[in-house]
Amino acid sequence: MRHALTPNRWLAPAELFLSSFIALIILGSLGLKFLPGIYQGEPLNWTDAIFTSTSAVCVTGLIVVDTATYFTLRGQALILLLIQLGGLGMLILTSVIITALGRKISLNLESVTADSRKLIPQVSARLLITNILKFTFLIEAAGAFFLYCMWVPRLGWKGAAWPAVFHSVSAFCNAGFSTNSNSLINYQDSPGTLLVISVLIILGGLGFVTMQELNLRFAQRQQSLPRIKRLSVHSQLVLWTSFILILGGWLLFAGFEWNGLLAEMSLSDKLTNSLFLSVTPRTAGFNSIDYEQATDSTNLLTMILMMIGGSPSSTAGGLKTTTFALLGLLAWSKLRSQTTTTFASRSIPDETIQRGTGLFVISTSVVVTGVFLMSSIGDFHGYEQRFLVRLFETISAFNTVGLSMGLTDSLSLPSRWVLIFLMFAGRTGPLVIASALIVRLAHRSKFRLAYEDVIVG
Amino acid sequence: MRHALTPNRWLAPAELFLSSFIALIILGSLGLKFLPGIYQGEPLNWTDAIFTSTSAVCVTGLIVVDTATYFTLRGQALILLLIQLGGLGMLILTSVIITALGRKISLNLESVTADSRKLIPQVSARLLITNILKFTFLIEAAGAFFLYCMWVPRLGWKGAAWPAVFHSVSAFCNAGFSTNSNSLINYQDSPGTLLVISVLIILGGLGFVTMQELNLRFAQRQQSLPRIKRLSVHSQLVLWTSFILILGGWLLFAGFEWNGLLAEMSLSDKLTNSLFLSVTPRTAGFNSIDYEQATDSTNLLTMILMMIGGSPSSTAGGLKTTTFALLGLLAWSKLRSQTTTTFASRSIPDETIQRGTGLFVISTSVVVTGVFLMSSIGDFHGYEQRFLVRLFETISAFNTVGLSMGLTDSLSLPSRWVLIFLMFAGRTGPLVIASALIVRLAHRSKFRLAYEDVIVG
Ligand SMILES: [K+]
Ligand SMILES: [K+]
Repeated sequence: MRHALTPNRWLAPAELFLSSFIALIILGSLGLKFLPGIYQGEPLNWTDAIFTSTSAVCVTGLIVVDTATYFTLRGQALILLLIQLGGLGMLILTSVIITALGRKISLNLESVTADSRKLIPQVSARLLITNILKFTFLIEAAGAFFLYCMWVPRLGWKGAAWPAVFHSVSAFCNAGFSTNSNSLINYQDSPGTLLVISVLIILGGLGFVTMQELNLRFAQRQQSLPRIKRLSVHSQLVLWTSFILILGGWLLFAGFEWNGLLAEMSLSDKLTNSLFLSVTPRTAGFNSIDYEQATDSTNLLTMILMMIGGSPSSTAGGLKTTTFALLGLLAWSKLRSQTTTTFASRSIPDETIQRGTGLFVISTSVVVTGVFLMSSIGDFHGYEQRFLVRLFETISAFNTVGLSMGLTDSLSLPSRWVLIFLMFAGRTGPLVIASALIVRLAHRSKFRLAYEDVIVG
Repeated sequence: MRHALTPNRWLAPAELFLSSFIALIILGSLGLKFLPGIYQGEPLNWTDAIFTSTSAVCVTGLIVVDTATYFTLRGQALILLLIQLGGLGMLILTSVIITALGRKISLNLESVTADSRKLIPQVSARLLITNILKFTFLIEAAGAFFLYCMWVPRLGWKGAAWPAVFHSVSAFCNAGFSTNSNSLINYQDSPGTLLVISVLIILGGLGFVTMQELNLRFAQRQQSLPRIKRLSVHSQLVLWTSFILILGGWLLFAGFEWNGLLAEMSLSDKLTNSLFLSVTPRTAGFNSIDYEQATDSTNLLTMILMMIGGSPSSTAGGLKTTTFALLGLLAWSKLRSQTTTTFASRSIPDETIQRGTGLFVISTSVVVTGVFLMSSIGDFHGYEQRFLVRLFETISAFNTVGLSMGLTDSLSLPSRWVLIFLMFAGRTGPLVIASALIVRLAHRSKFRLAYEDVIVG
């Protein structure tokens, strides 16, 4: 453990993290605007360049210009580079921070109980980053290979290569950008495509912590890391929640659209498309159907799944599966008038619950404020847009999903900036709060104000 | 303190409370359906009788039959009786429970710090109930008097009496039932009416705990109760939050509708109507304008205010001002990476924060489930209703507000039952949880499971 991570040495403070993200977005915007041969047709204006760059770096996938027809191969390659850097950067940063946080929290908890254990093994930053890079490129290469094999019949030996690479990276990074104008709607009759993309999305969204634990638990020993005897509460929560959400969403979407959007499809297409409807909102953002044509129930469930999002230390956005699960466990414990929230015979620390609920409150507030702004701007400009469409777009941007009911096509300039801000805040916000927390935990004061209670409810 | 309240003697368990509420609803339904001379026209069907009775007892104010034209004076009197019993019952029950809870919690906190103080003075149940009854009837009588004086010119000496009494009770109980078919739209040009009704709504929604503290702080000593030196954190939070919400809402609504719904009005009418727009959603439910005609921004802000609701130990529904304020304070403390939530130089106990966030999570889930059901039922019946209208109605029912964008007029049978359930759950849920909590606190076990942390966000 000589090279164990310590907050002071390894953790970029919130400012450094934010500025590197902003720098990447600015470089991307400049590249999209000024590099030669990036796009064809009308010149790209500043707002749209910044919108596209933010959407790529924040792996959101909302677009104001068509990636497929407006950008050239070079332009698409630049966008893919931004996606890969944005996604990978996030994966590495969250894992580094969580390793450090896990250590700090473990230290704190040891005063409470001796049974606490570290969330992920302490490894050197170099080993951690090497593992993440290996893990990423291995999966992306495998995904590209499978997609290539399936797309050769449609697109030819040469034509299938670039889309296969692009979609594999975009899916693993939960980015949702596509080289097709209508995302994956042309592939709704290709169960293989939808399944491979689904697996890429799920692996990208499950989180490195859980993947590493699964590896240490079930695969052979890796380098200096010990085999572990049971999965942490964290990973159990991630796996159970993901499983229930995917399965539950699958059944519900199938029910909502069986005689609707899925009516004309074969049975196997019905099943893969409803599975894809369940997988893609958390928070990949490809679509194999048109959400404008879907029922309100489908769009509502999609919005809920978008808010929940993927798991921590992943490329996915949203509140995260663990946060959602803890909210549910908290509500359940309060319904039974219990004072502690528990899962798998373990108490969850109050501070974690508070962090989760705090995040939920902040996220809800930002979404409400966002839809407020979108509505006010729309009302002001006299646009007649349905409230649902605006809410859908707001939730999609903030949780870096990229699904749309078609609003992105017809946005006023101020609305575009609201979405740019939402994408950026949704992506960087939680990490900024988390990294500030580590600094705070390191210098925590024991002083507390006197208690006084308040009546709630 | 001989007659101090103790949980075991005075607190009706959750079951008793629930069954008395259900009994009142059933009696009300039977009365509306079978008593002679209650309504005119077509016979009242069971669903509508139960809907009306639930809406009255839960002081919601949503209506499926027109109170003004369908019910006779006798029918209206029965409805007003149900409102008064439902509102007063709630006021008394919450105050009793809070007195007992406050005592339990104070006892618990004394182990943490010596500075904790009781939320409300311990008084005998008889004195508490007497005070509440005095407080209620005094305000309702004053309200009826003022309304009567203002309405004599319009309605005559005789005609003004019943509407004045009805609206005064309905406003103080935050019930929102009206003897006019279009609520208070006819009175939008009567600033006096809107102001009196606003004061009644605010006094009814501020909560007995705060009113009593204000009385003990600033008025003369009352019976055996000592004068207090400062307002509790609870009352400070109630007063500040209410003030900010009313003022902020007033400004925003004026901004949203100045050239919209308010465009044709005189300056004084503009100001009183936008104030009324700010006061009535928490959770009175009268309307002086037509929400169907309002901008999305107005309807969105109205939905937010409906969710927040009034203050604890009042006739109002919703999450409550304190819960909302604590959520804000929690988010603020997490944004600054602090471990404790504080207000007015006091720490708020973690358990209270958890109870508040638990309530928020449960309420959000119920509303989401409700709008889900409303959408699915609507989709199934092929109704083309805007999502916003359904969301508005769901939030209105659950928070016992009674405002509507017109959906209540055209509901399918299953949708009516969803609303009945939402009204009932929204009214009784929090109190059931709170009263179960007291029983639990009395027999609290010291046993806790070992801690293990989870990554959120
Ligand atoms: K995405
Ligand atoms: K009401």
